Amino acid sequence: MSRPLSVGLIGLGTVGSQVAERMLSWGPQLSRRAGVELCLKKVLVRDVNKRRPLNVAHELLTDEPAELLDDPSIEVVIEVAGGDEPMRSYIQLAIEAGKHVITANKVVMARHGPELLDLAAERNVDVYFEAAVGGGIPLISTFRVDLQANRIERVSAVINGTTNYVLGRMASAGLTMPDAVREAQEAGYAEADPTDDVAGFDATYKLAILASIAYEIKVRPDDIYREGIDGVEPVDFRYARELGYAIKLVAHTQRHTGRVEARVHPAMVPVDHPLARVEGPENAVFVEGDLVGQVLLVGQGAGGRPTASAVVGDLIDLARSIRRGVQSRPSFSFDDRIGVVPIGEVKTRAYFRLRVEDRAGVVAAIGQVFAEEGVSISSFIQKDAWSHDQTAELVVTTHPALDASLQRAREKMSALEPVRAVSSFLRVF
Amino acid sequence: MSRPLSVGLIGLGTVGSQVAERMLSWGPQLSRRAGVELCLKKVLVRDVNKRRPLNVAHELLTDEPAELLDDPSIEVVIEVAGGDEPMRSYIQLAIEAGKHVITANKVVMARHGPELLDLAAERNVDVYFEAAVGGGIPLISTFRVDLQANRIERVSAVINGTTNYVLGRMASAGLTMPDAVREAQEAGYAEADPTDDVAGFDATYKLAILASIAYEIKVRPDDIYREGIDGVEPVDFRYARELGYAIKLVAHTQRHTGRVEARVHPAMVPVDHPLARVEGPENAVFVEGDLVGQVLLVGQGAGGRPTASAVVGDLIDLARSIRRGVQSRPSFSFDDRIGVVPIGEVKTRAYFRLRVEDRAGVVAAIGQVFAEEGVSISSFIQKDAWSHDQTAELVVTTHPALDASLQRAREKMSALEPVRAVSSFLRVF
Repeated sequence: MSRPLSVGLIGLGTVGSQVAERMLSWGPQLSRRAGVELCLKKVLVRDVNKRRPLNVAHELLTDEPAELLDDPSIEVVIEVAGGDEPMRSYIQLAIEAGKHVITANKVVMARHGPELLDLAAERNVDVYFEAAVGGGIPLISTFRVDLQANRIERVSAVINGTTNYVLGRMASAGLTMPDAVREAQEAGYAEADPTDDVAGFDATYKLAILASIAYEIKVRPDDIYREGIDGVEPVDFRYARELGYAIKLVAHTQRHTGRVEARVHPAMVPVDHPLARVEGPENAVFVEGDLVGQVLLVGQGAGGRPTASAVVGDLIDLARSIRRGVQSRPSFSFDDRIGVVPIGEVKTRAYFRLRVEDRAGVVAAIGQVFAEEGVSISSFIQKDAWSHDQTAELVVTTHPALDASLQRAREKMSALEPVRAVSSFLRVF
Repeated sequence: MSRPLSVGLIGLGTVGSQVAERMLSWGPQLSRRAGVELCLKKVLVRDVNKRRPLNVAHELLTDEPAELLDDPSIEVVIEVAGGDEPMRSYIQLAIEAGKHVITANKVVMARHGPELLDLAAERNVDVYFEAAVGGGIPLISTFRVDLQANRIERVSAVINGTTNYVLGRMASAGLTMPDAVREAQEAGYAEADPTDDVAGFDATYKLAILASIAYEIKVRPDDIYREGIDGVEPVDFRYARELGYAIKLVAHTQRHTGRVEARVHPAMVPVDHPLARVEGPENAVFVEGDLVGQVLLVGQGAGGRPTASAVVGDLIDLARSIRRGVQSRPSFSFDDRIGVVPIGEVKTRAYFRLRVEDRAGVVAAIGQVFAEEGVSISSFIQKDAWSHDQTAELVVTTHPALDASLQRAREKMSALEPVRAVSSFLRVF
């Protein structure tokens, strides 16, 4: 065997400690599979004196980035600390120093992935990022290798475990959103500030990466239509069940002629669709290629061990190619000319829930609004007249229509005199 | 770009014509992704004059194996004809001639894979076989790359579309097995002679390949316990439903200390298990790794287009590595010392269905048999007394027990005087 491959690790949190643990305790197996000895040479942490559950030799630790980034003997930098800066800069510095990079950082890869990959190709090093999307689910390699003979038609995913846990608890236990979020925090599935997950940012980062890889185009998080789950109310789950749907935060992208559709929002998913069955912190990605048809990939989308599985899998793959003195993977090429379809031009089915006054003419007025917008109604339910205030609840689902028409219908209905509120609007998947 | 990569294709049937079609009609895209022009140089067929739906230039066709195998300009041989000989010999000759091989041939890979891979490593060429298992589902690369940081604990799969279609029709339409098989034949899901599928051979080949890759050991089809679906009767689906199970042909392998378990047989699968939901010609593979946890991969397991997706995906991957002048993938190494656990030593739950005489003492006698064998009963149902012949149907499910004990209990019950027949025995997954 050739000389050992020296690795620098940035971050020793949930993921980093699992990566370090596997490298330290499974050395011979990993080295045999990689064809070269893997040596953990330095670990960059914020506080070298912090007590950690993992037994990492103190001399491996440093709080000085230069000790990793400027050490020419370190050929591979693994970044699992997360967040945009300073991580983006560290990754850039590593690439510029001729080091290969493995990262689990979805924010950096979603925002700066194409530039970093271009830079890496220029410097003849590789950037691996399987762990940035879907934890241990094999996604990047599936697109990069297995599905290369396909034109990818669409990718639909439930890819944020926190919101899936929250929506699941609202559905099964009838919790309100704040209670379900609190429970998710207590169970360790949600951050103290849950905005990143609940508002759909996390799913948007992941979809940006998936769409870029699937179509070989530059899709930025800002290009993606994003809506969080905070508008979903407990009663919506009752109607969903009655109509045969589950409510999920769906990340969806689809190929159009010369453009792609890319959106993240809560949606009614038919109960017999595989995405409807994804439970709790699980992630699922549904891919359709023109040759392969539909492929579904399911697994733990986050957490230290599944993410470490992806990181160390990348490390073995990278080590094999370094050992042979080649850049094993073709550099990415991203097409700039393909744009994202504005949400208004997307065609979708929809679910409206309205609180209306319980009197003659209401249904006619609402029907009229949909007719004006050319939206065809699929189902209509009126229930639960509240005698105390003479209101009733109306639920309407539609056939596919332009999102812009659905939004105009929503506004017009809100302005109708007997409509107290359009309490809920969800797209139907 | 460097000079074109010449490819020879063996077989122009369901899969071969899709491979040829994609290569001929999607040339520029494939070449861009592969980094080298891919040129289909020769196609070996049985009858060059047969009329084919696909428009392949007549001069590409040959019925003379040597025209492919002895042509030094052909660097890659794709074999999608199927069956053991002469395909095994053709693959061996191709390797010996220094050609890389891509095959969809599960029989050859299951029976002779380790030897062919050894030979390929010796000659410094590659053998790709993603298409041999699970059609377009990314399996081999998942094990070879993505899950390399894991110790694989178990793989459970519904991996034969024909039997899954047959069992599904028996469950949903109450068909008898012969009727369901006939329907599968008419729908193109079963061969004229369905033995290979119905008796479990096909699933056994695929499991042999999966287990070999998952554990890096030599698992031969003959090492695998195999039982076909022909013992399953329509009434079993009624009990399955009542008890909360679906009936599937399951291929299962699991790691034990120093040995592995590997078996193919019909099984009762809990309805909430993902494998219970696999419908018709779909395949699903459930993998558990010690780091990644559980991963589920689902897709079309057979058919021309999904299989061609895997074959051409392999071709692109191979072409990339050839272009860089390296053997991109590490050669396999298979451990010879690890054996397969005999079925008698496997622990499993079981379902028994018995026809018994409807008189006193029967239940006690059956309970006594299970007690003697140390098998603990989980559920006991007596139903459907047939007044015309004074018999009743008894269904017993057990807690986990040694398969040998279950078989002895089965024999002892058959010999009991009031037991007319042990009509059905199924393992519970």
